[in-house]
Amino acid sequence: MLNSIDPRGGKDLDKKAIKDENEQLIEEIAALQKILFAEEKHSILIILQGVDASGKDGTVRNIFSGINPLGCQVHSFKKPTEEEFAHDFLWRVHKIAPKNGMIHIFNRSHYEDILVPTVEGYYTKERIDRRYDHINNFERLLTDGGTKILKFYLHISKEEQLERLTERIENPVKHWKHNDGDWESRKKWDNYMRVYENIFAKCNEVPWHIVPADRNWLKVNHIAKVLLKTLQDLNLEWPELETDKFKK
Amino acid sequence: MLNSIDPRGGKDLDKKAIKDENEQLIEEIAALQKILFAEEKHSILIILQGVDASGKDGTVRNIFSGINPLGCQVHSFKKPTEEEFAHDFLWRVHKIAPKNGMIHIFNRSHYEDILVPTVEGYYTKERIDRRYDHINNFERLLTDGGTKILKFYLHISKEEQLERLTERIENPVKHWKHNDGDWESRKKWDNYMRVYENIFAKCNEVPWHIVPADRNWLKVNHIAKVLLKTLQDLNLEWPELETDKFKK
Repeated sequence: MLNSIDPRGGKDLDKKAIKDENEQLIEEIAALQKILFAEEKHSILIILQGVDASGKDGTVRNIFSGINPLGCQVHSFKKPTEEEFAHDFLWRVHKIAPKNGMIHIFNRSHYEDILVPTVEGYYTKERIDRRYDHINNFERLLTDGGTKILKFYLHISKEEQLERLTERIENPVKHWKHNDGDWESRKKWDNYMRVYENIFAKCNEVPWHIVPADRNWLKVNHIAKVLLKTLQDLNLEWPELETDKFKK
Repeated sequence: MLNSIDPRGGKDLDKKAIKDENEQLIEEIAALQKILFAEEKHSILIILQGVDASGKDGTVRNIFSGINPLGCQVHSFKKPTEEEFAHDFLWRVHKIAPKNGMIHIFNRSHYEDILVPTVEGYYTKERIDRRYDHINNFERLLTDGGTKILKFYLHISKEEQLERLTERIENPVKHWKHNDGDWESRKKWDNYMRVYENIFAKCNEVPWHIVPADRNWLKVNHIAKVLLKTLQDLNLEWPELETDKFKK
């Protein structure tokens, strides 16, 4: 299924026009975010998933650099701590769910709790199957509580990943991004793809957006469009003063 | 249904013998809790529900006073704060779920988020029905994560409540427990009973224990027995040293 989607997102695209459009989209997003924050009626949770070097950090940097950090939090998911491991796997996730008015971005997410244990064979199939259910229930709970969840899979090709991982070794200002483990995970590429396809099939009540991610400007364009449309559909409104007491 | 259960728990009970048994039970509970805490493999969540003056505080005091507070936390549920209201209703609950090794006691719980809105008519029936589902899913998640949940409804008669609420007015050392609101809620007794019966029917995957609570010693006896049996069934074991390095 992922095989049939072009990570370059098609041919004959007008790079210059799309980059101009991106600027416009990001400006409109920033404007609406101000009202989202002031109104405190809805929240947005953006989930970014993808293999190493698929451009998750860059997505955050490109789309949200202009946004007031007061109303926007990024949470990066690492290996669970000892305390997190001593709870159910969604405990650490629920704690950092956005409250009304906020945009939270999950750089990786609870889906790692399916991906890694499946590929590495840590748990039984039954135990992992229950996690699919728990995640669906959890996303339903958040949605019901007023959170709009947007799930993006950054779809890059294996060749593009090789290029990016190699650059992290060759370019001194990218050395800090290098990680031996990324090359180990790369060897399990097909396994990861299979689990992702399973996730898209089983956890699609809140739909996944598969984003062609080999070219950053096109990736930004896809994500920014979805986010802007979401903000527009919320019919956000500046709150009015509740009384006339300050009017003369 | 609740009508058919005797809040006094039967006749001809030997109060002295039961009180002696309680002491024994509480001692055994305290002994096993030490291993639960050391082993860090399971956790226990005790949910106490019941109308005002049904003896929730007394349950905590009587059963857990001898337990090391390092391994035991009581959480009392009040009206949600502004921050809690800005999240889904289970956000504040999940945050305080016990980690392995711990016993947490909820003095009131997420079931208040069904009881009060239903009786007061705050939300639509559809919205409240979804909460039943969310709660079942949530309890399933905790259970799957290694938490043993014990749910107790402290069943007192309307007459016993009247006596206890009246004592809070007449006895100076109980004045601090008096609350006008309790008398208001009392007027809605039948409504509350109806919602409780609904809860017992719909949220019984983790079963409810209906505890005759008009007499404290009998209430303690029922709850302590369930808790002790639960601890015994966990087959707790003192952890062994992992290596021989400290042995000579």
